[in-house]
Amino acid sequence: MKAKKKYVYYFSDGRTDGRGDMKDLLGGKGAGLAEMTRLGIPVPPGFTITTEACIEFFNKKKHYPKGLWEDALTALKRVERAMKLKFGDPKNPLLVSVRSGAKASMPGMMDTVLNLGLNDETVLGLIKKSGNERFSYDAYRRFVSMFGSVVMGVDRLKFDRAFEEKKVALGIHSDTDLSGEVLRDLVSIFKKIILNETGEVFPEDPFDQLRLGIDAVFDSWFGKRAITYRKLNNIPETWGTAVNIVAMVYGNLGEDSGTGVAFTRDPSTGKKRFFGEFLFNAQGEDVVAGIRTPLRIEALRKRLPSAYKDLLAVYKKLERHYKDMLDIEFTIQEGTLYMLQTRVGKRTAAAAIRIAVDLVNERIINRQTALLRIDPQQLDQLLHPMIDPNATFNVIATGLPASPGAAIGKVVFTAEEAEQMAERHEKVILVRAETSPEDIGGMDAAQGIVTARGGMTSHAAVVARGMGKCCVAGCGAISIDEDARLFRVGDLTVKAGEEISLNGSTGEVILGRVDLVQPEMSASFKKLMGWADQSRKLKVRTNADTPRDARVARGFGAEGIGLCRTEHMFFEADRIKAVREMILADTEAERRKALLKILPMQKEDFIGIFGEMKAFPVTIRLLDPPLHEFLPQTDGELADLSGSMGVSVEVLREKNKSLHEFNPMLGHRGCRLGITYPEIYEMQVQAIFEAVCELSKKGKKVVPEVMIPLVGHVNELSRIKALCVQTAKAVMVRYKKKVSYTIGTMIELPRAALVADQIAEEAEFFSFGTNDLTQTAFGLSRDDAGRFLPDYVDKGVLPQDPFVAIDQEGVGLLMQIGVEKGRSTRPRLKIGICGEHGGEPSSVEFCHRIGLNYVSCSPYRVPIARLAAAQAAVREKIEKREKKKKGH
Amino acid sequence: MKAKKKYVYYFSDGRTDGRGDMKDLLGGKGAGLAEMTRLGIPVPPGFTITTEACIEFFNKKKHYPKGLWEDALTALKRVERAMKLKFGDPKNPLLVSVRSGAKASMPGMMDTVLNLGLNDETVLGLIKKSGNERFSYDAYRRFVSMFGSVVMGVDRLKFDRAFEEKKVALGIHSDTDLSGEVLRDLVSIFKKIILNETGEVFPEDPFDQLRLGIDAVFDSWFGKRAITYRKLNNIPETWGTAVNIVAMVYGNLGEDSGTGVAFTRDPSTGKKRFFGEFLFNAQGEDVVAGIRTPLRIEALRKRLPSAYKDLLAVYKKLERHYKDMLDIEFTIQEGTLYMLQTRVGKRTAAAAIRIAVDLVNERIINRQTALLRIDPQQLDQLLHPMIDPNATFNVIATGLPASPGAAIGKVVFTAEEAEQMAERHEKVILVRAETSPEDIGGMDAAQGIVTARGGMTSHAAVVARGMGKCCVAGCGAISIDEDARLFRVGDLTVKAGEEISLNGSTGEVILGRVDLVQPEMSASFKKLMGWADQSRKLKVRTNADTPRDARVARGFGAEGIGLCRTEHMFFEADRIKAVREMILADTEAERRKALLKILPMQKEDFIGIFGEMKAFPVTIRLLDPPLHEFLPQTDGELADLSGSMGVSVEVLREKNKSLHEFNPMLGHRGCRLGITYPEIYEMQVQAIFEAVCELSKKGKKVVPEVMIPLVGHVNELSRIKALCVQTAKAVMVRYKKKVSYTIGTMIELPRAALVADQIAEEAEFFSFGTNDLTQTAFGLSRDDAGRFLPDYVDKGVLPQDPFVAIDQEGVGLLMQIGVEKGRSTRPRLKIGICGEHGGEPSSVEFCHRIGLNYVSCSPYRVPIARLAAAQAAVREKIEKREKKKKGH
Repeated sequence: MKAKKKYVYYFSDGRTDGRGDMKDLLGGKGAGLAEMTRLGIPVPPGFTITTEACIEFFNKKKHYPKGLWEDALTALKRVERAMKLKFGDPKNPLLVSVRSGAKASMPGMMDTVLNLGLNDETVLGLIKKSGNERFSYDAYRRFVSMFGSVVMGVDRLKFDRAFEEKKVALGIHSDTDLSGEVLRDLVSIFKKIILNETGEVFPEDPFDQLRLGIDAVFDSWFGKRAITYRKLNNIPETWGTAVNIVAMVYGNLGEDSGTGVAFTRDPSTGKKRFFGEFLFNAQGEDVVAGIRTPLRIEALRKRLPSAYKDLLAVYKKLERHYKDMLDIEFTIQEGTLYMLQTRVGKRTAAAAIRIAVDLVNERIINRQTALLRIDPQQLDQLLHPMIDPNATFNVIATGLPASPGAAIGKVVFTAEEAEQMAERHEKVILVRAETSPEDIGGMDAAQGIVTARGGMTSHAAVVARGMGKCCVAGCGAISIDEDARLFRVGDLTVKAGEEISLNGSTGEVILGRVDLVQPEMSASFKKLMGWADQSRKLKVRTNADTPRDARVARGFGAEGIGLCRTEHMFFEADRIKAVREMILADTEAERRKALLKILPMQKEDFIGIFGEMKAFPVTIRLLDPPLHEFLPQTDGELADLSGSMGVSVEVLREKNKSLHEFNPMLGHRGCRLGITYPEIYEMQVQAIFEAVCELSKKGKKVVPEVMIPLVGHVNELSRIKALCVQTAKAVMVRYKKKVSYTIGTMIELPRAALVADQIAEEAEFFSFGTNDLTQTAFGLSRDDAGRFLPDYVDKGVLPQDPFVAIDQEGVGLLMQIGVEKGRSTRPRLKIGICGEHGGEPSSVEFCHRIGLNYVSCSPYRVPIARLAAAQAAVREKIEKREKKKKGH
Repeated sequence: MKAKKKYVYYFSDGRTDGRGDMKDLLGGKGAGLAEMTRLGIPVPPGFTITTEACIEFFNKKKHYPKGLWEDALTALKRVERAMKLKFGDPKNPLLVSVRSGAKASMPGMMDTVLNLGLNDETVLGLIKKSGNERFSYDAYRRFVSMFGSVVMGVDRLKFDRAFEEKKVALGIHSDTDLSGEVLRDLVSIFKKIILNETGEVFPEDPFDQLRLGIDAVFDSWFGKRAITYRKLNNIPETWGTAVNIVAMVYGNLGEDSGTGVAFTRDPSTGKKRFFGEFLFNAQGEDVVAGIRTPLRIEALRKRLPSAYKDLLAVYKKLERHYKDMLDIEFTIQEGTLYMLQTRVGKRTAAAAIRIAVDLVNERIINRQTALLRIDPQQLDQLLHPMIDPNATFNVIATGLPASPGAAIGKVVFTAEEAEQMAERHEKVILVRAETSPEDIGGMDAAQGIVTARGGMTSHAAVVARGMGKCCVAGCGAISIDEDARLFRVGDLTVKAGEEISLNGSTGEVILGRVDLVQPEMSASFKKLMGWADQSRKLKVRTNADTPRDARVARGFGAEGIGLCRTEHMFFEADRIKAVREMILADTEAERRKALLKILPMQKEDFIGIFGEMKAFPVTIRLLDPPLHEFLPQTDGELADLSGSMGVSVEVLREKNKSLHEFNPMLGHRGCRLGITYPEIYEMQVQAIFEAVCELSKKGKKVVPEVMIPLVGHVNELSRIKALCVQTAKAVMVRYKKKVSYTIGTMIELPRAALVADQIAEEAEFFSFGTNDLTQTAFGLSRDDAGRFLPDYVDKGVLPQDPFVAIDQEGVGLLMQIGVEKGRSTRPRLKIGICGEHGGEPSSVEFCHRIGLNYVSCSPYRVPIARLAAAQAAVREKIEKREKKKKGH
């Protein structure tokens, strides 16, 4: 026979059925209450109804599973005995609070109902016991309105309005001036409201109240807000919520009573100091409501020294027990401390790091645990200049927080203008409907970028993140009139040259200047990152196209360049002309002539980048985008180009037309260009190896890796590899210098992953281009997905945006196949990733798990990747240890 | 010790080292000579140098492998003994022919050299032996010119010109009037030409001649033409070529000599009759050169009855032995028959079928063998109206043979005009730069389509093949001036209304009318297809969007519709307006209003198609293309639409702009539309089930299968499936009719294949959309690939166009994964294919091998698919049998 399921977990005074590690079953709150009780910390008696009971409630079409109600009543009896009170007893009534509590803290869940058990009879007992009629009726009217709104679904405003009306009628301003009699009157008014609104009578029977309260908590699990929150936070609906029923203690029984919240350390800086707030003579909801200004926790020391001493002892005990900074709630009733809640406290990134490092120094946790304590994403906060949190400012519009940090500058509307003003050392913000590769120069010159269109993965967003530059994307509220050189937001007009500020971490566009503060890398940060570097197996490289990016990334600890895009260099003012000549060339000879002009410039680029990266490897990707990206499209630009090139506008138009592609993403780009126009790749490889040889002659160590993009068939690679080898050889012979190098490929097409065994016979390294791999695996254009992808994520069709975190079951499976097959023919194949995902923690962990050698990400994400890589390694170690344990 | 390799295989008079099944080693020709010798058929003595020797020759940098030359000389000695002649003997010289012979017949290979062994001395021996000076010197001058051109690389024209000059100088018109003396004179003139052109002396030593001849055959394996041919026909260069050295016999020794070629059955009709041509007193090259008109083979019967009798006996013996129709070459020297070659004869599709069926009836082969004898692709010839092969016509341009068949009609330049003229029962040819989905109506109305741009897989090509309509695509030579309503080809101008004809099987565009002949399905064809249907396991369905297509496909044996695209219906004149209203709608309510207008039309479509397909399953795919495809793009069209819809051109432009996509292939289409605008799919499903219920009420059996396109994540499918089920249920309740149906999905994205286990939990069937799967797996847009894909295939970067035949190692692997994973969660999952590949034989075989249930292809390819499916099943059976044999 199956043992009867245990649905109710009792706790009181050191006796408890539950434990702190039973969060799945008891919810976070219930587990905390049980654990505190186990630790001998004073917690009012109570019991928790399990999440399993909740799930069965829904499985049974909202009927309680067998035994639940009976067990709850038994537990209630034990609470009665512990409190020496009786639930529903008119003379000596036990009151309870009813609160929801899921495994994770969920703001969408049910509000607390306090003082449950009150009715017209028991209130008299409360008066007798407290000797305070006003307090008792205040508790009663609070209960009726809470129950009415939270449990019975009446709009809370109805009660508030009746309350205000009463005050107006009596000419009373302050709530505390309402007498017990008036409050009693309000109780019956509130009950009438409930009857009118719901057609149901307010339940006088405390057991009915209890049952309805439990039902309400259960039901709130499928409330609209809860559903939305779960979707947003990937919480499965199968978790269910627990219900906590706890004997009431009162912080509002006089000046030796009160209620408070505290953090065991400073949640903003992480400093080791007890940090909290307290209200005398108040109930929990008063602290949260913010009607009265709470005192600093230290106020307790003087006025209730014994309780304060108890509190200090409790928080220290708890922190030592939980080994983390905690967020606690407590009530003091007539000088006696009762703990109501404990949980791990939320904190800023800076605080998180300091706390973790301090806890290691205090020998409370080890380094591995410290590493796991930090959310790598949070580090972003620490790396960009930020808006002074103490400043006040005028937010005129909010877009997507596309690239964090802050920026201040004068509004410009074209990339050209941005560059010109930057040359005059003016700080500018580039405001565009959307950006294109031609805007690169201007984006680089600007302090920050705002676009009216485009999402988190739009060109502007991606490039800005790559540059570590602040960007607000898709700010639909602004409407740009480029001709009039202004933009509008509602009635407001902002002209070119006016100053605005951006907060790329929140998406805010701000009129005028705001003060910025430069983040500092704290000692704790450096220490933690040092531990991270010791723990991780994955190398961390950066995606950098310029010596400047390379320098920034080195500062953040990058161990090489995983992706240096050669095409961004093509857009610079002095070379785009030669590039266009090359594209307009009709013959190979003409093309070679134009390429000869580009060669020395590319060489200089490579010398600069190799120089910055010292002896770290630099992976240079040969030309990738389709050629039409380098030609202007608008009439004006075409006319300009026509003038400067001495070619008719018609010819240019014809060329544009002939280069037009229906699906450029799937078009004539990547190595396909190298097959059609080998002379382009030849020039690039020549430039790389001339740079390499020149540096090498100066005694500098250089580690070049030539990367061929968009390979789908091994024949593409073998053909281009032969060209590269031949070209490199010729340069090295000419310089009389032998330098070792490798040639590898991007794996960014599903086919490449599927035939990776063949490709690895030619490729000396792989780099997963997960941006394109995601686009092709999903058949989803990043540029076009904005129209439906956000909707997909909102509606839960996709669990997350696959351009943000690697879709492990689809794209990730392709990667696994690629790794496995690649190493089947070349066992020591070096494999990395250079898509946007290389700096996203869950993706970094995935890369670790499938055995990649390195990740590469934009400079500002390098620390994030370092930490995420360390966490992945630590987690794996722990898993292995646990497996081993189980094995024995 | 390793046994010495055998490089030389001798054959003569029943004694032979080789066999007919040694084609790999001896080449086709050598194996045939060996086999005929084994059968006791008279073949002149000779020997074959193996393909292995050729390969080693190249491995050893053009040096003979050890022992080759010695073995060749030993074999030559045996030939001398058999012929009672001596190579290089001035009195009694042996002459030989030297010919290349690879495993497969290769037109790019070396020409024959006859009469090798002649020089100024041996020619005297030949004169003595033949008693014919003229014959001898004629043989000598032929040999010198052949050797000079074929072996020594002199332009053959040089010899021809010298020959003509001599004739002019002597005032002689006919070759046969040249005396022996003059011919001797020509021999020394030819030798001088060789010396002048090559700087080398003509080798008088017969052994030098032999060695150079063998070298020349080997070298021809890497000749330019051979390389090109190998690439085009996927022949690996590792095969190498064999060299055949055979004692000369002479058909030009008088009127009791001669030479001929024959087929054992009629190669054009397949009729069982000996079919050949013969020239008295001639050498082989005379037959091929076509200078003298050969006689029908029957001429032999009277003039050389004994040789003729021998020939009949030989051909019958050979046909019985090879069990196939053969192509033979022979020479009769002074009344004695010598066979020089035998191989399986080339034949038309009609002949192939008739021969195969006849051979079964004659109990020479079994049905399985008969099925394997037919190249399925060839069937195409039999299904379309064809240009009368006997007609003469004026080809003005040649494009790609995009869709076979023939068509005649008046030139029109717009789809609209095509439709208008078709309504007046005029036959038209639609000539466009390229076609778009809006042209569908016009394409349907036209007899045939010509496009100036686009490849074999362009819109025009694909749609035309789907319609079974003749199409010439990418005809770059024509330049269209739509405004002037004419096109130009060079100097020629063709105006609208002029008649042209198309040959879609050759790509020819013809000025004026040509006569067409309608193909007939012969009795043999029907018989063969019957056997095919009994053998195959794969079902064969068709892709059909209209009742007309469905009817045609049923006629060709389709067993259901595998893909009915609902969007093609949207383009028809009467409904495109409602579709556009739907697209322009700003609210769901407006959209629903427009959809209500489309509903009854879609229902009628479905009633028509279900009606045609009787009780066969019909798979209807819900709307797939992005909405912008339904809006006009040009200013003129926009103005028209603006007028008819009462919406300003600006609004329409704005809508176009807002719907514009960078990569429409990867954009807002397929089920993504169904997620964003569920009301569209709802309408379509309603239309399907109203049609189903109405037919069902009339007692007709209907098997509807609803197919959701472009699913990448199971959530997309589950969401839309729920909508479909709900909608279908509502209709069935309304009609009080319960009909069974299934809901499935396309697998056309790599991700879908990779997570097929999840998708199969929702999908009741899969249909591989290999067009899109190829595009996404390769990252290759079919619309844009034209700029480089042909080049890729030419250069051998890709072995074949992956849009023609399934790329088995990449796309195919995805399919395998999809099948395996799909059936892991739904073991009886029905799986088909509905991409263009469903009618391509190697792809059909692949589908069979990976366990698909059906293929679906355009109506005109149904018989091809039926045969290919049968061949796949037969081959599998044979393989299994052979494996079993090996196992024992």
